[in-house]
Amino acid sequence: MSLLIVGSLALDIIETPFATRELALGGSATFISLAASYFAPEKVGVVGVVGDDFPERAWDLFRQRGIDTSGIEIVPEGKTFSWHGRYHYDMNTRDTIETNLNVFADFKPHVPGHFTSPDFLVLGNIQPDLQRQVIEQLDRRPRLVLLDTMNFWITGHRESLERTLRLSNALVINDSEARLLIEHPSLIVAGRKLQAMLAEGSPRIVVIKKGEHGALLFYDEFIFSAPAFPLEDIFDPTGAGDTFMGGFIGYLARRGAVTYEDAKRAVIYGTVLASYCCSKFSTEGIENLSMEEIVERFRALRILSTFDLEEEMLRSR
Amino acid sequence: MSLLIVGSLALDIIETPFATRELALGGSATFISLAASYFAPEKVGVVGVVGDDFPERAWDLFRQRGIDTSGIEIVPEGKTFSWHGRYHYDMNTRDTIETNLNVFADFKPHVPGHFTSPDFLVLGNIQPDLQRQVIEQLDRRPRLVLLDTMNFWITGHRESLERTLRLSNALVINDSEARLLIEHPSLIVAGRKLQAMLAEGSPRIVVIKKGEHGALLFYDEFIFSAPAFPLEDIFDPTGAGDTFMGGFIGYLARRGAVTYEDAKRAVIYGTVLASYCCSKFSTEGIENLSMEEIVERFRALRILSTFDLEEEMLRSR
Repeated sequence: MSLLIVGSLALDIIETPFATRELALGGSATFISLAASYFAPEKVGVVGVVGDDFPERAWDLFRQRGIDTSGIEIVPEGKTFSWHGRYHYDMNTRDTIETNLNVFADFKPHVPGHFTSPDFLVLGNIQPDLQRQVIEQLDRRPRLVLLDTMNFWITGHRESLERTLRLSNALVINDSEARLLIEHPSLIVAGRKLQAMLAEGSPRIVVIKKGEHGALLFYDEFIFSAPAFPLEDIFDPTGAGDTFMGGFIGYLARRGAVTYEDAKRAVIYGTVLASYCCSKFSTEGIENLSMEEIVERFRALRILSTFDLEEEMLRSR
Repeated sequence: MSLLIVGSLALDIIETPFATRELALGGSATFISLAASYFAPEKVGVVGVVGDDFPERAWDLFRQRGIDTSGIEIVPEGKTFSWHGRYHYDMNTRDTIETNLNVFADFKPHVPGHFTSPDFLVLGNIQPDLQRQVIEQLDRRPRLVLLDTMNFWITGHRESLERTLRLSNALVINDSEARLLIEHPSLIVAGRKLQAMLAEGSPRIVVIKKGEHGALLFYDEFIFSAPAFPLEDIFDPTGAGDTFMGGFIGYLARRGAVTYEDAKRAVIYGTVLASYCCSKFSTEGIENLSMEEIVERFRALRILSTFDLEEEMLRSR
């Protein structure tokens, strides 16, 4: 099944308590497409924009991972979008030091002709009007439209975001954003209310990411609680959420189906990819994984969360 | 297997965004013993202190649940310990408005003669010197000593707490307390380091409670990630942590064993009991449960967290 991803491509400055890196390859479309590439059965297409400073090593990486970059516009003499972030000691919180939109300021997504009928569409975290512009360029409704957003759009562009939500079947969002959007302290209530904001019909999928606490999947009337992979050391969490989304959608594209069982496994594959992402700087943790490494962590997550009701308890009733 | 519980008995004032209740039955030993009573095969013994204002309905409740109260000292003309707490809108955070130690100020635990050889011992959240005084009154080492503590003892009585930890095989602690005690942002690292502070030998059990995010069990070299029960409404979280501990130790006492599989199930039963605790005020949610209700939520938690590796993925390796 074909998969199209719209989002940012970036050259970031990342500061962690352990190291600082400049010109780190980043951006939502970068992480999503790299993660998805491990599963997707066809080429993954990316729509985005970069300056002509976007480095050859990035193009090489996309090529190696079989990612179709024909939808990435290159602005001559433009500078690529850049985010400068600093992580706190606990690695769970971070400050944005500076955001330079650069070529992203005038970005108008253009979907290449050979990608106007994707089976799966990911609308990475960009302005919700632009997300809808992508949908409008398609020849038909994708099987699944997966949406990401952030606090900036929730507080400043809510009406537009709600319109994009009504065109989407799936939303991946972190816990603080879910609470901000729904204004209810319970994540269970928030997940239910977010489902009601999506396009009508089935499936209606909401995934609430909780960082070190795992993720909650709301699929129609079902709820699935996924554990986090127990990492002792987090090296750089940048892009972990996007990587999660890439693993999630890539697995669904591979399956060509979006049943509840598929979606549960997709959450686990997303968790696996995100765990590899956090263990190295920038995209380095997800540039060259083997399927053995991926399946190994899938199994580890299953072992970590498996328990059974013993027979004695049943007899005692 | 016999089970002895030491802790507080209280008449609390609880304010939530929805209601206020005075003279609410509370205290760590109260919640622990009520929860444990659903599983424990023998009478559960409690050591603690109350004033003569401790109400008849509380004694009745203990009697109904088969709890041995002969170790509860009654101070004539004394007032029972009282905590006044106020929950914030999100129900995850609370302020202590007032703590009146009353008869608890001069409490010296006295273990009755018929309880000096318990198989399982729970040291509820009291001053760590007092916790050790209980151990010193025993005729033999219990099969398992389960410890609780709080930020007040961690910051103000660390050396004494560390001595009590070295006499314990199991610790139940919440995530913020674990980080406070270990001073490391990773709960995985914190869990490992807490295990190393316990008595030598096997098992070394640490359970980190994460509220709405479930719990992590560290059992020797194993880690188990337990989901939270997805409650849409939390009515009163007071005592949920103690109730968790009671379900946990009660199940182990019933089994008479502390294997890893037992400990995993014990975490799930603790989670089940805690979910019932939160759904009503004070002890009301855990006063009269049926084993059917308990097993029903155990099954729900299993369904909520079960996933499988599909065969297609294995073949694709």
